[in-house]
Amino acid sequence: MASGWWGKLLEVDLTRRATWEREIPAEEMQKFAGGSGLAASILFREFVDCNPLDPENPLIFMPGLLTGTVVPSASRTTVCSRSPLTGIWDESNVGGYWGAELKSAGWDGIIIRGAAEKPVYLFISDESVSIKDASTLWGKDTFETEEAIRAEAGSKVKVAAIGPAGERRVLISSIMFDGRLGRAAGRGGLGAVMGAKNLKAIAVKGTGRVPVHDLQALRAMLKQEIPVIREKAAGMTQFGTAGGVQAVEAWGDLPIKNWTLGSWEEGAKKTTGQTWLPKALDSHHTCYGCPIRCSKLIRLDSGPYAGIYGHFPEYETLAGFGANCLNDDAEVIMAANDLCNRYGLDTISTSAGVAFAMELYEKGLVTKEDTGGLELQWGDAEAILTLTRQMGEKEGFGALLGEGTRNAARKIGRNAIEYSVHVKGLEFAFHDPRAFTSMAANYATENRGACHLGALTYFLGRGIKVPDLGYAEPPDVLSNEGKGKIAYDMQNYMSIFNPMGLCKFLFLASVGPTQIAGWVRAVTGWEVTPDDMMTLGERLFNLKRMYNVRLGISRKDDKLPPRLMSHARPSGKSAGSLPHIGKMLDEYYKLRGWSEEGIPKRETLKRLGLEWTEPALPLAGL
Amino acid sequence: MASGWWGKLLEVDLTRRATWEREIPAEEMQKFAGGSGLAASILFREFVDCNPLDPENPLIFMPGLLTGTVVPSASRTTVCSRSPLTGIWDESNVGGYWGAELKSAGWDGIIIRGAAEKPVYLFISDESVSIKDASTLWGKDTFETEEAIRAEAGSKVKVAAIGPAGERRVLISSIMFDGRLGRAAGRGGLGAVMGAKNLKAIAVKGTGRVPVHDLQALRAMLKQEIPVIREKAAGMTQFGTAGGVQAVEAWGDLPIKNWTLGSWEEGAKKTTGQTWLPKALDSHHTCYGCPIRCSKLIRLDSGPYAGIYGHFPEYETLAGFGANCLNDDAEVIMAANDLCNRYGLDTISTSAGVAFAMELYEKGLVTKEDTGGLELQWGDAEAILTLTRQMGEKEGFGALLGEGTRNAARKIGRNAIEYSVHVKGLEFAFHDPRAFTSMAANYATENRGACHLGALTYFLGRGIKVPDLGYAEPPDVLSNEGKGKIAYDMQNYMSIFNPMGLCKFLFLASVGPTQIAGWVRAVTGWEVTPDDMMTLGERLFNLKRMYNVRLGISRKDDKLPPRLMSHARPSGKSAGSLPHIGKMLDEYYKLRGWSEEGIPKRETLKRLGLEWTEPALPLAGL
Repeated sequence: MASGWWGKLLEVDLTRRATWEREIPAEEMQKFAGGSGLAASILFREFVDCNPLDPENPLIFMPGLLTGTVVPSASRTTVCSRSPLTGIWDESNVGGYWGAELKSAGWDGIIIRGAAEKPVYLFISDESVSIKDASTLWGKDTFETEEAIRAEAGSKVKVAAIGPAGERRVLISSIMFDGRLGRAAGRGGLGAVMGAKNLKAIAVKGTGRVPVHDLQALRAMLKQEIPVIREKAAGMTQFGTAGGVQAVEAWGDLPIKNWTLGSWEEGAKKTTGQTWLPKALDSHHTCYGCPIRCSKLIRLDSGPYAGIYGHFPEYETLAGFGANCLNDDAEVIMAANDLCNRYGLDTISTSAGVAFAMELYEKGLVTKEDTGGLELQWGDAEAILTLTRQMGEKEGFGALLGEGTRNAARKIGRNAIEYSVHVKGLEFAFHDPRAFTSMAANYATENRGACHLGALTYFLGRGIKVPDLGYAEPPDVLSNEGKGKIAYDMQNYMSIFNPMGLCKFLFLASVGPTQIAGWVRAVTGWEVTPDDMMTLGERLFNLKRMYNVRLGISRKDDKLPPRLMSHARPSGKSAGSLPHIGKMLDEYYKLRGWSEEGIPKRETLKRLGLEWTEPALPLAGL
Repeated sequence: MASGWWGKLLEVDLTRRATWEREIPAEEMQKFAGGSGLAASILFREFVDCNPLDPENPLIFMPGLLTGTVVPSASRTTVCSRSPLTGIWDESNVGGYWGAELKSAGWDGIIIRGAAEKPVYLFISDESVSIKDASTLWGKDTFETEEAIRAEAGSKVKVAAIGPAGERRVLISSIMFDGRLGRAAGRGGLGAVMGAKNLKAIAVKGTGRVPVHDLQALRAMLKQEIPVIREKAAGMTQFGTAGGVQAVEAWGDLPIKNWTLGSWEEGAKKTTGQTWLPKALDSHHTCYGCPIRCSKLIRLDSGPYAGIYGHFPEYETLAGFGANCLNDDAEVIMAANDLCNRYGLDTISTSAGVAFAMELYEKGLVTKEDTGGLELQWGDAEAILTLTRQMGEKEGFGALLGEGTRNAARKIGRNAIEYSVHVKGLEFAFHDPRAFTSMAANYATENRGACHLGALTYFLGRGIKVPDLGYAEPPDVLSNEGKGKIAYDMQNYMSIFNPMGLCKFLFLASVGPTQIAGWVRAVTGWEVTPDDMMTLGERLFNLKRMYNVRLGISRKDDKLPPRLMSHARPSGKSAGSLPHIGKMLDEYYKLRGWSEEGIPKRETLKRLGLEWTEPALPLAGL
């Protein structure tokens, strides 16, 4: 089964200013592929028990197995490390061009260790790897940083960079890719890990071709497949994710006023992409090799935020700075999005922090004395933008919010935690588990915390079909029956995309395990089946769980925040619904082959080829 | 409405060795009655923010409003303080003779403040109150202490005393009443508060008559009522609570092997009162003025534990040291019960600690190295008795368990907390919220933690009727519909018994608010209605909630432990059932007039005459 195909990683030790090559045998690549899979294998084996911001914490940039090939939407890279925000497993996936460029330069991934004494950036090209001085870049925002590097090294260079937030180790910092195109590895604060290493950016230029085992066969497949993908994902092509606000609101899935309200029809209309893109669109864009083209660049030439030139806010950003802050002024969202992208802040955790702060202010737990005089009224533009800027600058009240809502709530004390909507310290993405109850089981168990991308089960509820998965009819979105199984199935399935470097929107085009297995066979020559793909997904999910088990995670952490567990939406399509999380977890753990405490059983680990992670088990008491 | 009726409390400051009288106006008595109601009013108004084991923490002994009168089963006293086990509101209710004796001596309650320099006991009689040296009593068990005091002061003296556990400030210590009769104020570690005050015992002798407004009218009522009570509660008369094990098992309500199994038919038969009482019974007993007579004294003349002479284990003790430790040897339970009563340990928290330890041992989180060589096999007699003794002595591994399972789990670390079955730090009583789902809402919200007595909703499920409450048919015990309402109704109703000093087993005889209101009118002359009674219950429940709100309690604390939320029983009548706690809480908070965060709203406080507790609200952010 093993072919001559193998991986080649770049190892960088910033403390010693050393770089070297590391080969990954084909067998290892087959077992974990690339992306978060291979990264998890490395991070588990080479686990260092330190503060995530210590130099010893490795930071891995890992394109997927198919990234950079002609496979459609195979653009993606995952950044992995232990999160400084949550203290547990973190992965943050990003599109754009950087990953394909790295593969072109001959590298399947980068492992960064140590910390530079002074600010540096990495410059990687076909010929060489160099650690360069970044003292003139330090302090620049992510757009300026990209421009400065490209001005020096050529416009074809692809740049991943942190902004001032990451430099200041703000715990919700992102790593931004491709400058104004605004591709973000946002979740879990990996920008702070990069900042703690004094690593401002990684610039890449590659000219090689990513090897493909049977290019002819692959091209033949794609000739049939790409038009289908293009057609099925046409909705995404027109407005991108920004076009989803109204539909999400109609499903009772849009969080409103820090997840308390049920309906916001007018506001959704005012803030959705359909309303704003026709006015502000500069150009359509795409990530590397993607036929879907969901990326929308805008330029504001007038109005209070004239001068903004960058990516239109994605759905999550519109929901977070819009509905969830009760703000229906889309220009304010664009401005907040611009700040987040420049500072290098996760728009989900940042906007969640603003909504959290507004509710604390309303409830009197935070006053003008705490905010330095700033009034935090719901929907207030100045409040939104000032807090966002403060989070980026790590100053004022925003410095506290920049630690994430769980940490901030602990410091604020009293009952502030009631208003933090998180799992395992990661703020919820903006899809409501009360609207699609299967998302409750997903959010509660996802390895990085309240992540929506791990299962995307709401798409299943909305009628999208996955070939081979067996959901002929959309599940009843509000019932509590069988929702543990949906989360289980979809997590395993969705866990294929990341290691392959595939965009999950292929799911919208009904790309299933069979199709992906075909691509993998053509690219690598490995004789893999659709079942192998599903097993890969399951293996990786369990591997990351074991990483967390070692850190003390168990069933006690697999939970919903009180607001989503015991507070029903008062109106809208999902009014009155509350997920029965206990029942779902009981079902879910059994399907997973985990103990009732949420710990993978030995036979499960053996079945998935993860026996070697067993040393973590005694720590979990099993 | 107010009559000349008032309350007279004894104030004791052990630091200053001072005692004085305090009058409680009739208005205050009407609003809070006695027992935990009046105590809550005092503890809220005179709140001291200190460690519960500091001298400043007041400890209140409060008989009920009707205690000591001819009203049936009006024997009860509540001990109240801030719990050293949970850190929040605690009340522990006890029958026997002590409360009636205190009332006979002319006192409606005692407030103990400060701490004596050396061990003392209080001696209270009609004529006088004295603080006496207890240096010869210190170290004695509760039976010996009672005997020594009665030997000195006369056999009619009624004694409340702590054992060695309370002296050593073991956090699950009880206060024991009436010596071998084994009446216990068990829950929440109030024995440790008494021990921290260097107060070994309170001995009381009274000869007066408890005043009754219209004794003739009362006697006329009782002539009709007592035979009915006697007849309806006949089951309790024969075997006491000990007779319930098999029925509880059949309902799928008996916790087995630290709440993991579903059925234990043979074991239930071997350990129930029906099997053992005929062999071991010495005599039937009763608390003051009770026609039910559920108390059973036993004497073991042979076998490994020959010499035991005391109360037969109550249902909770049989379940805790029996099924939940997977021990079907009733003699071992009797021996453990004897140890608990002598050391002064809560049998629920003690046996829960043993089961918890056995599971940790099975899972490898605790080893022989931790236990000093003791093997903690399920059901092992030596393990059960050694750990119990160690908890009483505060030595070995038992010293850790004596801190309660939540605290012990925190110190053991890793995932030990998965095996601690508690709410707010108080171990669950042994009725399963998966068998009677309404108990989930009750356990999650009870003011002292996982208390079964606050609502006793399982009796409703088993067909007991409460006049005036409107449950004509028993609710479906496993459904999740309307269970927040049942908890709400039953908590309000059950909250009447305690301030009145009434035994809750009157509920088994269908004593409802109307009957109780009649008794109150006869005893006090107040023109109270059945609705007034229900409002009293609701007021007191909210008052205690406000005490906890001040300490930071909110919705986040109203939860079930993972084992009962997400792990279904594998067999038996309640197999597969899991309570939908989120849904219940949503319903419950609305009925209570609490915010979604579980904080009483201002209008609720106003309606219940609790506006004066509002200063606690800003602390809760509302």
